[in-house]
This record gives sequence, C-alpha cells and structure tokens, in this order.
Amino acid sequence: MDKLILGGVEFESRLLTGTGKFSSKDEIPKMLKASESQIITMALRRVNFNNSDENILNYIPKNITLLPNTSGARNAEEAIKIARIARAAGCGDFIKIEVINDMKYLMPDNAETIKATKVLADEGFIVLPYMTPDLIAGQRLKEAGAAAVMPLGSPIGSNRGIETKAMIEIMIENIDLPIIVDAGIGKPSQAAEAMEMGAAAVLVNTAIACSPNPAEMGEAFALAVKAGRMAYKAKMAEESRYANASSPLTGFLHNN
Amino acid sequence: MDKLILGGVEFESRLLTGTGKFSSKDEIPKMLKASESQIITMALRRVNFNNSDENILNYIPKNITLLPNTSGARNAEEAIKIARIARAAGCGDFIKIEVINDMKYLMPDNAETIKATKVLADEGFIVLPYMTPDLIAGQRLKEAGAAAVMPLGSPIGSNRGIETKAMIEIMIENIDLPIIVDAGIGKPSQAAEAMEMGAAAVLVNTAIACSPNPAEMGEAFALAVKAGRMAYKAKMAEESRYANASSPLTGFLHNN
Amino acid sequence: MDKLILGGVEFESRLLTGTGKFSSKDEIPKMLKASESQIITMALRRVNFNNSDENILNYIPKNITLLPNTSGARNAEEAIKIARIARAAGCGDFIKIEVINDMKYLMPDNAETIKATKVLADEGFIVLPYMTPDLIAGQRLKEAGAAAVMPLGSPIGSNRGIETKAMIEIMIENIDLPIIVDAGIGKPSQAAEAMEMGAAAVLVNTAIACSPNPAEMGEAFALAVKAGRMAYKAKMAEESRYANASSPLTGFLHNN
Amino acid sequence: MDKLILGGVEFESRLLTGTGKFSSKDEIPKMLKASESQIITMALRRVNFNNSDENILNYIPKNITLLPNTSGARNAEEAIKIARIARAAGCGDFIKIEVINDMKYLMPDNAETIKATKVLADEGFIVLPYMTPDLIAGQRLKEAGAAAVMPLGSPIGSNRGIETKAMIEIMIENIDLPIIVDAGIGKPSQAAEAMEMGAAAVLVNTAIACSPNPAEMGEAFALAVKAGRMAYKAKMAEESRYANASSPLTGFLHNN
Repeated sequence: MDKLILGGVEFESRLLTGTGKFSSKDEIPKMLKASESQIITMALRRVNFNNSDENILNYIPKNITLLPNTSGARNAEEAIKIARIARAAGCGDFIKIEVINDMKYLMPDNAETIKATKVLADEGFIVLPYMTPDLIAGQRLKEAGAAAVMPLGSPIGSNRGIETKAMIEIMIENIDLPIIVDAGIGKPSQAAEAMEMGAAAVLVNTAIACSPNPAEMGEAFALAVKAGRMAYKAKMAEESRYANASSPLTGFLHNN
Repeated sequence: MDKLILGGVEFESRLLTGTGKFSSKDEIPKMLKASESQIITMALRRVNFNNSDENILNYIPKNITLLPNTSGARNAEEAIKIARIARAAGCGDFIKIEVINDMKYLMPDNAETIKATKVLADEGFIVLPYMTPDLIAGQRLKEAGAAAVMPLGSPIGSNRGIETKAMIEIMIENIDLPIIVDAGIGKPSQAAEAMEMGAAAVLVNTAIACSPNPAEMGEAFALAVKAGRMAYKAKMAEESRYANASSPLTGFLHNN
Repeated sequence: MDKLILGGVEFESRLLTGTGKFSSKDEIPKMLKASESQIITMALRRVNFNNSDENILNYIPKNITLLPNTSGARNAEEAIKIARIARAAGCGDFIKIEVINDMKYLMPDNAETIKATKVLADEGFIVLPYMTPDLIAGQRLKEAGAAAVMPLGSPIGSNRGIETKAMIEIMIENIDLPIIVDAGIGKPSQAAEAMEMGAAAVLVNTAIACSPNPAEMGEAFALAVKAGRMAYKAKMAEESRYANASSPLTGFLHNN
Repeated sequence: MDKLILGGVEFESRLLTGTGKFSSKDEIPKMLKASESQIITMALRRVNFNNSDENILNYIPKNITLLPNTSGARNAEEAIKIARIARAAGCGDFIKIEVINDMKYLMPDNAETIKATKVLADEGFIVLPYMTPDLIAGQRLKEAGAAAVMPLGSPIGSNRGIETKAMIEIMIENIDLPIIVDAGIGKPSQAAEAMEMGAAAVLVNTAIACSPNPAEMGEAFALAVKAGRMAYKAKMAEESRYANASSPLTGFLHNN
C-alpha cells in the first residue's frame, strides 16, 4: 500500500505533529487520536525525567513514534550531543535535527545540519534534518545519510504557508528521498497543496496547537493530507488557459 | 449540526458534483458513492427521455438531488424555458441558472441571470445562479430570491483555481446567503481553500471527471471539503510575519 | 506613435491621477509635474466655485484634462445629474462614472453604471465607467458607448494590488476598447504589471497621495507605467519551467 | 546621492546586465546604451583573446564595469581558478561566483560558493556570489568577504519571477550588504518589485537578450528599476483590507 517509509519503518499517516504550544498537555493525546498522527516531535528539553506531571512523554501514547528534536542547538556539535542524550534516555532512534542561530526568523543552518546528519546517521540514527530549501544542500543531506529531508515552507510558527514552493518542487523532483514540508503550514489547504506537489508528508504543530480546538484542527489537517495524497496518486488534470464546457452549449433550444 | 441548507433542504455534503466529461457514464455512480456528494448538476439536454442507455438520469441514484442546469441558454428567456422543461420532466425544483454568450471563457451574464432568477424564484424554484463574482450582482440575486449564489473561481473547466479570491471573500462577508464556489477548482487544496474562506460549498466537475480515476479523485475532494469546513469552524490561527518557536530555544545545553 | 486615445483625444501619458487624499492641495501641481500625468480625476463636490482657495480646480494646470467623477452617486440617475452639472460648470466632456452603494468595500454597481453610460454617451460625454471586472458587463459598457472601461484591481484605496488579474486579462483580450485599471494599485510594480498585461492605462490616486512624498511617488509610478508599456510593446519572453543557461556551462576547464 | 556601492566603487544604475543569449553581439552595445546599465557580466570562456570578432570584450564600451563570472565551475577550486585567469587577462577585480553542478535547474552550490568567496576576497577581488536564497548562507558570505550577495529569484533563464520572495525579504532585512536579485526576473514589473522590497540592484540577462527588441527591453527594465527604487525610498503606503474612499461619498446630492 501507499505507506510512508522512514528509516525502514512504515507509517500509515503522512501527518507529523508536535508537542509545542498546546494550552494544556491534556490536549496532546486528544489531538493525536483525532489526527491519527503516528509521529510526534518534541524538544528534548521538555522531557523532564524527574517529574511525571511535567514529563511530556507521559502524554504520548506508546504506539506513537517519538521524534525528539535538537531545538536549542546552535551548531552541529550541540545537535549531536542532544541527539545522543535523547537516545540514551530511551527516546528511540529517530532524531529531527534543528540547528538554529537566527533568533528572529529561526532559519536553520544548512551547513551545520549536514555535518550533524553525517555523524548521527553513521551512529545508526534515523535522521530527519530541518533545513532551508536548497536543492544542493538537500542532495548533501542525502549523501550524509538522512532518512528524509525537511525543508521549511515559511518561518516556523508563522502560518504563512508554502512560500518556498518553487524550491521545494525542485527538491521533490530531484532528490530521491521523502521530502517532508515542515514549518509555516497554517491551514489544511496548504497541507493538501504540499501533498499534491508530491511531498511525502508534512509536519504541522503551531496551526494545530494554537487553534481554539486542537483535536478538531488535527482532524482537519489529517483529512487534508489524505486528500492531497490521494489527488497526487490519482493524478490531477492539467490547467488550461481557456474555459472548457462541462455541458454541451448548443442545440437544446437552438440547432447550431 | 453543521448542515448545508438550500431552499429549506438539508445536506450533509458540501461538495456538489457534475455529470459532464466522464469518459464513461458508469463512472458517475462510482464517483457519487466515493465522494458522498448529494447534489449533482446536469445539462437538461443530456436528459434523453426516449433512450434509457443515453439518459443520464439512469446513472444517478434516487437519493441524490438533481440540479439541472440551463447550459445552452443565451439569455434569461431561454434559461427560464429550460428550467420549466426540467421541472415538467420530473427533475424537481432545483435549478442552476447558467446564461452564457461568451464562447471562449464561458463567462456568465450577470444581468440576464438576475432576471431569470427573479422569474424562477417567483415560480417556486430553488434557484442557484452561476455568476461572475460581483458583490452588487450577488446582492441583487439575493433580492431576486436566489437560494444561494455561485460565483466562479476561474473559467469553467480551466482548473486554474480560485483566481477571484478577493471578490469571493467580499461576497461571503457581505451577502447573507450560502456562497458556493463553482468553476475553476482544479485541486483538492483549492476546494479546501474555498471552504476555509467561508464558502458554504463548492461545485467540482472537470477536475473529478477528467482525472484518470474519478472515484478516487471524488473522494479526495470530499476529504478536502470536510477539512476546509472543519478548519473554518474550528477557527484558524493568524499569520505572523516573524517566526514563533514551537519549542524552547535556550537552556538545554546553555543557561541563557 | 504609441498614444492613448480616449474619445478621440490623444494623450502621451498612460498614468491617470486623482485629487483625493493629499495632505495639502499644494502637492497636487507638484505631483502632476513630476508624474507628467495629463488626466486627473476629482469628485465634483470638491469643486467649490465660490471659494478659490477651496476650489480644487485652482490647483490643476490648464493643460491637464479634467476627469470629473460622479463620486457620491448611488444610482444611474444621480450619476447622470452630477455629470451634467460638471459639464455645465465648465469641467469639459470627460466623465468618470462611479455608482456605489456598498460603503465597506466601495464596490461599483455595474448595472446602474451601464445605464448611466448609455445616457451620457448619447449626450456626447466621453464616458469612462468604473466597474467590477466582468467581461459581459464590459461588453455592455462598450455597446452603451463608453470610451474606455475601468475595472478595479482591488478595493479603492486598499493598495492591495491587482487581485482581479484573471478577469481583467480576459477583458483586455476580448473587449475592443482601452481597459484602464483603476483602484487598488499600491506600488509601481503593480502599475507595471497592469501595463504588461496590456492595460491601456492605470489610474493611481491613494498610493501617490498618501505617500510621504507624493511628487516623487508620482514620478515612480510614471516610470513604472512607461516600463510596463514598453515591455508590452517590445514583447516579453516566455516563462519556462526549467533553467536556461545564460552562459556555456562546460568546456572552459573541462572538455565535455 | 542614492548610489549603489560595490567594493567601494559607486554606480548610478542599479540594473546589472549580461552578455548571454543575444541573437547578435551587436545588440549588446545598443542595449547597454538604452538601459544605462554600468555593469555587465560575461562568462570568461566567451572572452576569446585571439579573435577580436569573437571576443565579447570588443562589444562592451570602456566605461562599463566588467563582471566576469565563473560559469562552468563545478566547485570552489574551479571558480577560484577562473577568477584568477579573468583578472590576469585584464578583466579587473570584480568577479561573480557561480558554482553549479545541477544541470536541470542550474541551482548554485552555496557551500562551495562560500569557500570560493573567502579565498577570492582575501586575494582582493570584489566578490559577488550567486546563491540559493538562504539567510545563514548569506551571513556566511558576508563573513567570507563578499561585496554583495546575489540570491536567485527563480531558475536562471526561466523568467518565472521572484518565487523566493519570502527568503529574499528575510535576507534584505538581516544582512548588512547589498542584496542583488539575480536570475529568474522576466518582466520589468518583477524588477520593480525586487527594488520595492529593498533589493540594492537586480541582474537581468535572459529577459532582455531574448526579447525581440533587446535595446527597448533594456530601457524598460531600467525605468522599472528606477521606479521601484524611488518608491522604496519615498516609502509606500500600507495595504488595508477595506476600501478607503478617495473622494467624499456623501453630501453632493444628499445631505448625509
């Protein structure tokens, strides 16, 4: 069937979610249920192993794949360190690399991300690097052993949509890895658009977590992702400049 | 619940479909089943009462609401005539008014459409007029008794998407009737976008009928319409210019 | 040469301007000089014949063509009345018809505008009707005797740009009259875009008048209008999906 | 005054041009004259020092600044080699770095470009690197000694416009160097848009060279660049959602 495969692991859902920004942690399991998301990312720092109320892991059902991220890392070295701590703490082999120095737009550092990817992939991690859309950097991430590439649609948490569409389309066309659009997706229509473009999946956090009703919004995104994927697989019709009548335009009352 | 109400009749589905352009009429019932569409439009001319193989009605299940359209009409008078024939032939009270003279872009004639709407609404039809997006013409259609207003997204059958977005948003905000985006929607993401804007429903024909797999594409559109509607009801978060971190950016390896 | 011809009168400049919203009326002659605009619109109401300080006409050089508009008219009858007063007061034969009932988006009423156009064109006015973009209404305006058609780009004074691009392109392609994009143009690039699309001219008021430096902004718009017109005449190259090297990519250091 | 300063050298014109793709080399001096461009890029390979007819330099007036580019280079080392040959051959200190491995979309390799920039800036070149828009890579180019940064708008020669607008805006806001939009600009309106965004300059080659009338198109681009720059300096008015009347809407025929 049409599964998403990351590092040899199969997933039904192509909607990845996150744990940040929910008004209450209790919303997280409800959102996961409604959205049927199977992978959730969380900043390692939010995993508080000493206090079970505060420990985000206690809100994530066991059948969900954890995708710890290296949020807070400013260079490859720090990202590598965080990844190793995450695995040692039992968070599994998946790691989302985030290396960010820019505090205004939170733009990732592709060069450091490539370095960290190489090291961590060699250590057996399933590496999903977050990056600024760039075909060549994406190819380097593949060479470095990434399991997928996660280009941003627009600044994290901005809900601005897929403003880097042209660059992501070129990546999808030319990199033989799953491309997961991460960051900036603010509406289900934008998630559907990413999937229609051929993205393998999307990661949506802010738009779900900051909605007045995260569970319902999670379900809306799930439907949109399915819609976009189905349309991509069924193949969409071409655009045409001119109109194209659905019904015969002549001959009912006329004879021409 | 969140039903679509047209002329006092309630519908669960907010996806209207059409009978045109299918490679085989046998695809129509499959598409209706997969999409769960409850309203389907057809040109009256395609209803051939003498030959059951050719009669489009034989391919439409009884629980589906027929929306005969006046395709082929060039002015109000012809549209009125076609509508009356449709009702007399047992097609019910719903009528989609199409008055078109322009053979290249198939742009509807708002003035003639308003005239036909007035006459047919007075005769008890449930009138859904197809129109060029225009706030004032939309208000006149309401005054004339329309049950909904159907502005075009882009030329019929072009799959160009919602190129009239600004005008349709203004209509949704200022006309107290269901606004149904009809024509031009080529992808599920565009259907979701219309629903997020607050459209009451969309009508999609070409993008489904001309897909290599109409049933699957019909389902994709149905999911997208639901996604967009759910997001509209759950309320979406605002866009922001700057990034907005999902996770704490400091303090894991640092103390600042 | 490449002149704009309206009602038989020739103009060098394809930038029409307006008198509204300037912080000081003294800015108007400076802006006219810097922009080389030859046609300026003003609401008749602002023509105060009893008080020369207040009379907007005293700020408009004699070589500029006045385009009084019917701002304030709510129907054809009122527009006609205002037009006649304008001519009687010596404002000349040009008239821009504005019929507006919608106070939030200031959307024009196409049906009433067509009526007023017919009456005034028959009385010898050179009629420039402002309208919601609509191919069929534009054709009716031509039949009614309009000298040009002025579809809006987006709501008046909003600076939202040409949000009705698809509809205006269809009008330009199919109506044999000058199409002047009026309302919504907020930046010189948008004025250039209108001209590249084949518009005969643009009318820009708010974006110039509300700039901190109206004269300089007027000049910027004038340059952009010329740029767009020149490009339209010189014909632009096609878009292509793929890249297309400007320079040979091989063979300098390599032999392949 | 408002000069473009690159490596300490002042320029009046903010339109950079190129020598590629002209149907005849004789078009080049005409285009330079009409466009008033003061900087022109050419692939070093096209400089044939043995044959004056073939030597592109013979078609470029002496007052124009040469910007040799490293087209054909596949890595930093090759780019450095070409740059040195260019200088040794008398082409001056300016160098545009292009490092490209991707033959379909001709996407530049930011990592190799940063390396070459460092080496060449240290050797006293005035380095203008062509790059995939990326804030962090842009900051690295600045640190490496670039005199300006040249992010692409869309694939070279595609005329697709500024598809990377969001990323370029972020670069302009956060990198204290001239940002020159290079590649993809297909119409004067797009050049004006880049300048309105705050770009320091644009480089346009294909759209001028492939026009049926390169001199006229060069002039059109020059006007558009000036228009966009003037508007940027004069400051543009904000967009608003609603309309904003230019003229008083009441009180002429009414008293409300």
